[in-house]
Amino acid sequence: MTEHDPGYRDLGYARLDTHRLQRTGDPEVVYGAGKTAEQTIGLLRALTEAHPDRPALATRLSAESLATVRAAFPEATVDDVAGAIAVGPMPTPVGLVCVVAAGTSDASVAAEATFTAQAFGAGVRKIVDVGVAGLHRLMDVKDQLDEADCLIVIAGMEGALPSVVGGLTGVPLVAVPTSVGYGASFGGVAALLAMLNSCAPGVVVTNIDNGFGAGVFAARVARRAGKPA
Amino acid sequence: MTEHDPGYRDLGYARLDTHRLQRTGDPEVVYGAGKTAEQTIGLLRALTEAHPDRPALATRLSAESLATVRAAFPEATVDDVAGAIAVGPMPTPVGLVCVVAAGTSDASVAAEATFTAQAFGAGVRKIVDVGVAGLHRLMDVKDQLDEADCLIVIAGMEGALPSVVGGLTGVPLVAVPTSVGYGASFGGVAALLAMLNSCAPGVVVTNIDNGFGAGVFAARVARRAGKPA
Amino acid sequence: MTEHDPGYRDLGYARLDTHRLQRTGDPEVVYGAGKTAEQTIGLLRALTEAHPDRPALATRLSAESLATVRAAFPEATVDDVAGAIAVGPMPTPVGLVCVVAAGTSDASVAAEATFTAQAFGAGVRKIVDVGVAGLHRLMDVKDQLDEADCLIVIAGMEGALPSVVGGLTGVPLVAVPTSVGYGASFGGVAALLAMLNSCAPGVVVTNIDNGFGAGVFAARVARRAGKPA
Amino acid sequence: MTEHDPGYRDLGYARLDTHRLQRTGDPEVVYGAGKTAEQTIGLLRALTEAHPDRPALATRLSAESLATVRAAFPEATVDDVAGAIAVGPMPTPVGLVCVVAAGTSDASVAAEATFTAQAFGAGVRKIVDVGVAGLHRLMDVKDQLDEADCLIVIAGMEGALPSVVGGLTGVPLVAVPTSVGYGASFGGVAALLAMLNSCAPGVVVTNIDNGFGAGVFAARVARRAGKPA
Amino acid sequence: MTEHDPGYRDLGYARLDTHRLQRTGDPEVVYGAGKTAEQTIGLLRALTEAHPDRPALATRLSAESLATVRAAFPEATVDDVAGAIAVGPMPTPVGLVCVVAAGTSDASVAAEATFTAQAFGAGVRKIVDVGVAGLHRLMDVKDQLDEADCLIVIAGMEGALPSVVGGLTGVPLVAVPTSVGYGASFGGVAALLAMLNSCAPGVVVTNIDNGFGAGVFAARVARRAGKPA
Amino acid sequence: MTEHDPGYRDLGYARLDTHRLQRTGDPEVVYGAGKTAEQTIGLLRALTEAHPDRPALATRLSAESLATVRAAFPEATVDDVAGAIAVGPMPTPVGLVCVVAAGTSDASVAAEATFTAQAFGAGVRKIVDVGVAGLHRLMDVKDQLDEADCLIVIAGMEGALPSVVGGLTGVPLVAVPTSVGYGASFGGVAALLAMLNSCAPGVVVTNIDNGFGAGVFAARVARRAGKPA
Amino acid sequence: MTEHDPGYRDLGYARLDTHRLQRTGDPEVVYGAGKTAEQTIGLLRALTEAHPDRPALATRLSAESLATVRAAFPEATVDDVAGAIAVGPMPTPVGLVCVVAAGTSDASVAAEATFTAQAFGAGVRKIVDVGVAGLHRLMDVKDQLDEADCLIVIAGMEGALPSVVGGLTGVPLVAVPTSVGYGASFGGVAALLAMLNSCAPGVVVTNIDNGFGAGVFAARVARRAGKPA
Amino acid sequence: MTEHDPGYRDLGYARLDTHRLQRTGDPEVVYGAGKTAEQTIGLLRALTEAHPDRPALATRLSAESLATVRAAFPEATVDDVAGAIAVGPMPTPVGLVCVVAAGTSDASVAAEATFTAQAFGAGVRKIVDVGVAGLHRLMDVKDQLDEADCLIVIAGMEGALPSVVGGLTGVPLVAVPTSVGYGASFGGVAALLAMLNSCAPGVVVTNIDNGFGAGVFAARVARRAGKPA
Repeated sequence: MTEHDPGYRDLGYARLDTHRLQRTGDPEVVYGAGKTAEQTIGLLRALTEAHPDRPALATRLSAESLATVRAAFPEATVDDVAGAIAVGPMPTPVGLVCVVAAGTSDASVAAEATFTAQAFGAGVRKIVDVGVAGLHRLMDVKDQLDEADCLIVIAGMEGALPSVVGGLTGVPLVAVPTSVGYGASFGGVAALLAMLNSCAPGVVVTNIDNGFGAGVFAARVARRAGKPA
Repeated sequence: MTEHDPGYRDLGYARLDTHRLQRTGDPEVVYGAGKTAEQTIGLLRALTEAHPDRPALATRLSAESLATVRAAFPEATVDDVAGAIAVGPMPTPVGLVCVVAAGTSDASVAAEATFTAQAFGAGVRKIVDVGVAGLHRLMDVKDQLDEADCLIVIAGMEGALPSVVGGLTGVPLVAVPTSVGYGASFGGVAALLAMLNSCAPGVVVTNIDNGFGAGVFAARVARRAGKPA
Repeated sequence: MTEHDPGYRDLGYARLDTHRLQRTGDPEVVYGAGKTAEQTIGLLRALTEAHPDRPALATRLSAESLATVRAAFPEATVDDVAGAIAVGPMPTPVGLVCVVAAGTSDASVAAEATFTAQAFGAGVRKIVDVGVAGLHRLMDVKDQLDEADCLIVIAGMEGALPSVVGGLTGVPLVAVPTSVGYGASFGGVAALLAMLNSCAPGVVVTNIDNGFGAGVFAARVARRAGKPA
Repeated sequence: MTEHDPGYRDLGYARLDTHRLQRTGDPEVVYGAGKTAEQTIGLLRALTEAHPDRPALATRLSAESLATVRAAFPEATVDDVAGAIAVGPMPTPVGLVCVVAAGTSDASVAAEATFTAQAFGAGVRKIVDVGVAGLHRLMDVKDQLDEADCLIVIAGMEGALPSVVGGLTGVPLVAVPTSVGYGASFGGVAALLAMLNSCAPGVVVTNIDNGFGAGVFAARVARRAGKPA
Repeated sequence: MTEHDPGYRDLGYARLDTHRLQRTGDPEVVYGAGKTAEQTIGLLRALTEAHPDRPALATRLSAESLATVRAAFPEATVDDVAGAIAVGPMPTPVGLVCVVAAGTSDASVAAEATFTAQAFGAGVRKIVDVGVAGLHRLMDVKDQLDEADCLIVIAGMEGALPSVVGGLTGVPLVAVPTSVGYGASFGGVAALLAMLNSCAPGVVVTNIDNGFGAGVFAARVARRAGKPA
Repeated sequence: MTEHDPGYRDLGYARLDTHRLQRTGDPEVVYGAGKTAEQTIGLLRALTEAHPDRPALATRLSAESLATVRAAFPEATVDDVAGAIAVGPMPTPVGLVCVVAAGTSDASVAAEATFTAQAFGAGVRKIVDVGVAGLHRLMDVKDQLDEADCLIVIAGMEGALPSVVGGLTGVPLVAVPTSVGYGASFGGVAALLAMLNSCAPGVVVTNIDNGFGAGVFAARVARRAGKPA
Repeated sequence: MTEHDPGYRDLGYARLDTHRLQRTGDPEVVYGAGKTAEQTIGLLRALTEAHPDRPALATRLSAESLATVRAAFPEATVDDVAGAIAVGPMPTPVGLVCVVAAGTSDASVAAEATFTAQAFGAGVRKIVDVGVAGLHRLMDVKDQLDEADCLIVIAGMEGALPSVVGGLTGVPLVAVPTSVGYGASFGGVAALLAMLNSCAPGVVVTNIDNGFGAGVFAARVARRAGKPA
Repeated sequence: MTEHDPGYRDLGYARLDTHRLQRTGDPEVVYGAGKTAEQTIGLLRALTEAHPDRPALATRLSAESLATVRAAFPEATVDDVAGAIAVGPMPTPVGLVCVVAAGTSDASVAAEATFTAQAFGAGVRKIVDVGVAGLHRLMDVKDQLDEADCLIVIAGMEGALPSVVGGLTGVPLVAVPTSVGYGASFGGVAALLAMLNSCAPGVVVTNIDNGFGAGVFAARVARRAGKPA
């Protein structure tokens, strides 16, 4: 933000915050929902120009948008399940995030968390379908949980998994409720409330289906705590 | 309900359903909240007259009401934690209900469930403070759970215990959310929603803090399935 | 869960809990919503391999999925209204579950409850369209209610039917609210709240539209109480 | 509202609507909650001056306020359970309102509805404790229901009584939910929702605990339909 | 309900309550939502057979269903805006219901209320687009309001119209909230709450968009109070 | 409202309030949602006839409706993003409204607010994408905020922008929550609640996505305070 | 915020924002709820030192706190109904705010709005008890409404008054919902929702019972528009 | 959990999880709400016996309980504002947690977070009263924020502070909503929703008023990242 650099770039349809990397250590990310593919491409271009040595990330792209954006950046890293794309080389991972998901239906949230944590510079291990109705599946992987620098624990329905994991290990644990369920799950509210009221100490929570936010947070914790994977 | 018996007794302040025992196998119960001690005493007297061989039960009595009512029936069985009283001899237990509570703070609900199930004719085993943040406490009692004819699983906060128990055993399981918690527990709503959305199959739920309803239901299941304890 | 058997089977997209039958007496069930037909077929295959003498059940299949899955298992038992399929011979029924539905619109929930209870080993009698606005329809079938080992009572709108049935009989009663209604029914919340607050003692409740959960629970109660139908 | 009469009387703390009797056929009523006893007395005085041949009604008075107000009008008609007072001679009743309450705990709402309907000129018959868990109590009084010009049906908890009564008779039926209950009754919301979703055609509803509104409405219907009682 | 007549007719997909006319003075009505056109036709046939001198009414038909049903009963009376049909001659009107709607968008609810009240035997006058933001439109019709035996007042958004009308006239007033609005109207909840809390005495309320219920209720009031129109 | 002019014009489908301009200084506006293009055209015609020197405004038109209406009034001013049209010459602006939007996704609400304020006679300056996660973008435009006569501050998600702007300037500030967000944003409720609870003094709020209401209000404030732009 | 002045004053228990007057034109105000009388006195002292020519305002003081604070500032202006105090000379009023309240029970909110607007430099006219159930009381004061520069319209229960006033006049209108009511008023939520959904264009809303916020906003509008009263 | 050690200690009123330290690195903590002072003392004794080299922590003690417990452990460290006590020597701090609170009224939550983080082994810096309505107070401490290993950001009302802080720094940020506010803050729900929807990436959230949970989590992050303070 010198005399000549206001710290943002005005694209007409957006004021890209080019100063964010300097303030927070990470560049701005394009939230693709509600943007056209063209807008997303424009923002990714501006991001790669501003920060050529960091991947430019866009999330929550529809299948259509993702196809268009991917065509514009054929070298980019893409996760179709997450609906996300990263333009530019992915960083060397530092520290380890472990993404744990209760059920098969939580796959897209787990993918978004994984992709984001990797783009933000952490190594990631993913463990899925270890819901609390069959605890032996979880007990089997306890050692893998303990090795992580930060856990992301994802569940829909009654959202009990973070409480059980939080009782098994002291690794910092970010809980992500998902909208998986029906009736009185109210689109993820039941899981959200359960996680906010966890009897296991030290569970923190993100918005429903917010794999992105969990990924950013966990990568920051892992980068500070961890060693290159 | 003959020509001379309308099937209820009009006490002025209430129409006691004296026909309920014949229809459902169990007499009416006095819900003490919002009644004076004198009304409760009058209803208990009328119940013992109508059904001399069954205990007359009153629940949700305040400490003051309970003292007055107990003085009127010095031979009665009383549970101070539950705020409940049973006038007349308790039945010989048939079948086994197991009452499982997540925390110390769920004590009054566990006591109401236990007292009710006993007054409705079941044997009861009570296991407390086996919350999911320390699973080994629960694993230690799995055999006791399997021996029951019906389980009552009580929890506040995130209400995860029924899901975990429901994954460990196939005994019919009634979940009771409690109002224990603060903030986004919303007086037990978080636990209620969690239990309604349990990923363990076959979990059924009562109203918040409704140990009475769970006790009635579980006793009926146990009496049908069980042998005299 | 011996040295060589972890108690689950990893299909890549799921960790099938093959140990559940041993723990709970019933095998895992495939919840079809959010799964592809291919995933459902794979899981049903794995279930029938793990437990060849028990039906492998999948529920909540869309019409499209059901057609594909049915083609893969031409011998299977199918309920189109419920959107459910059972692969393998159905068990000999033990005990009697009575499924009671308030209105014509509750048909799919009643079908799911019926199909599930049968697949879980109980006999089922179904009685429909006996809402409380015409009580004589219900009075006509009181004897049939009394003969059951467990009742499943299904209603939308104001959800009053379980309270009325619960006053007529002492058979254990599982209430299932449905999403039938409009405006202030809020997708079944009005019926759910009514059932949770039933003035009839001993009414327990499942999630909105959860015929499956009610079927599992009622079958377990009936199997313990009942005689082969 | 002539040149000299603005149609209201300014008492400083209130603008009493003295024109309401002319517009609507009934004078304004003093809602006592949140007013001092002195304000209530002043408003009752002004009402009796404006409309000497109609009773001046005040409702929702605390026990303390009621004692003070009663002392100021020793000739007044008082209902202690309702917390209401009427100054001036009660009208000759025209038509018949039948007030039906599900439980003993609904007594104060039933009293308010009864007192109001009488002060607004209708005859009233009151029937209490006829909840749906013992239908024979209700069947016993069906003839009395049919004789009424308008029904007020009061219930807390699951609020099922209006649906059952509405299926038994075609008399216009006003349902009043009460705050009786606990947990997921949410202070009367469960009963309110149930009544709004009644499957019996032609049930209309008031606010929770609003015996006054039901009394005004029912009296107006009865006065138009009925004959002097 | 003689020895040979159970009081209902079992059509397989429904138990039509043929005894309702005798109990309540009005026959059962077909709620078309969630029924096939064929089911609706079958029920209308059964109704006209059971009660040949009363119109058989079906409501909430989709445009497609309505076309099919209308083709089956070419003589029937149809209201396309309401999505309703009445088979058989409409009754001679007794008494007068006045349907008042706040806005143009409330048209379908107003049509349903009007059609229902007519089928239930009342005369109807309809007044639309008299919202409170232009009170002179309402003042202009005050005399028409006073002539009615019962008012149905329909509004969405903030639902203020019933309070204003209820202050202008003492005619019994049924308020119907509609789902017209956006954002914090929450599908009609804002209007519903406003109407339940009306400061005008004697306002009663139906479910959101429930023109049918209001029509039934108002016709019953008008028939008792009124003279043939 | 002379003897010959009732103050409204009855178009059959609507009673257009032609007296509103005289009462409030501004003519009625056509809310296009739920109206046909033909109805909208008819109302715009009637408005231009009644008030030839003021623009006739219609808002919330779908793309299809807008195309039809625009074809009927080829000279009209149209905003495609807002879905709004103004027939007749726009007024000379008096005073200055500043419309501030947090994100790119709030564009349609910002467009509706801008177009409305202009049609109601104010000058408008629009500043977009100045969300609180990059405060320097906002600090850069503080002088522009101070020059305004009224601010409209638009945000979705957590709705923090009005609090921050309200701490920077004392210009009257109208906050508009938008439905931008997902999960626990509940369609704009999170932003609405945040704005209602703003710690900055003097923030007032409109309904979710209500750019129209904010535009009317702000234009009225600006016209009174301001000078011709 | 020079080198020596950070723009705030650290009192240990608070960082008083002494720079706010310069940024916004008005000094910080002490929100007394949750503060001790001593803290309030200390903050008022610091405010009068920082801005000796402006009144230092504290609101939401309990009766006890108010007595203690008043004793410390015997010259201060106090409003007991509002629970507010202003230390230092009140400003010469500029412009006119009109505070309109629906009922007697809204008095404390009306007092807070009035006192705040005066302390923020506007003249205030107060009109109370003009609820919509007796419109003639409101029509009588229409001219007084039109003379104002800004209206504050206060109502509880169904919150209809702002819609009616907003249809009568084009003066900028701030609506304040109050917590007056019971049952389904939900502590003011019913009134809040009604006001947010007002069909009168240009109504803006504050938090429930937030007379302070309305007073600040209205004073700012009036000061810009108005002339010294 | 050897043959002789089940991993918990049964005190009758509780099963203290003595194995938790081994699993998670931190011992169990006594949640004092709903426990008697005697129960709290007993649990603290058992904790100090089990883990003599770690402080035994009890939180949420009432003033009365705290006095009794403190008398039993005169050497203990006590925080009266937090209502918390730690028995045994506090650990040498590793890493730095920064606790940031928006207002004076958030003091007890800030104290609980601070005390907990210290008892769990982190150094803590506390910064209070830096709400977003006066941003310069926050800008002044940006360097202190950047130095931390983990931030705890506490706010009530609209809960905007975490979004602003999250835009200023990339330090991992745990947001804690408080119940400070009134009306539509709904006991902290407004702040909770705002924080869950933060537009700043990587904000995670705890339950309302849950300073304890935030303290545990932040200490774990800081201990892993940090150096002894």
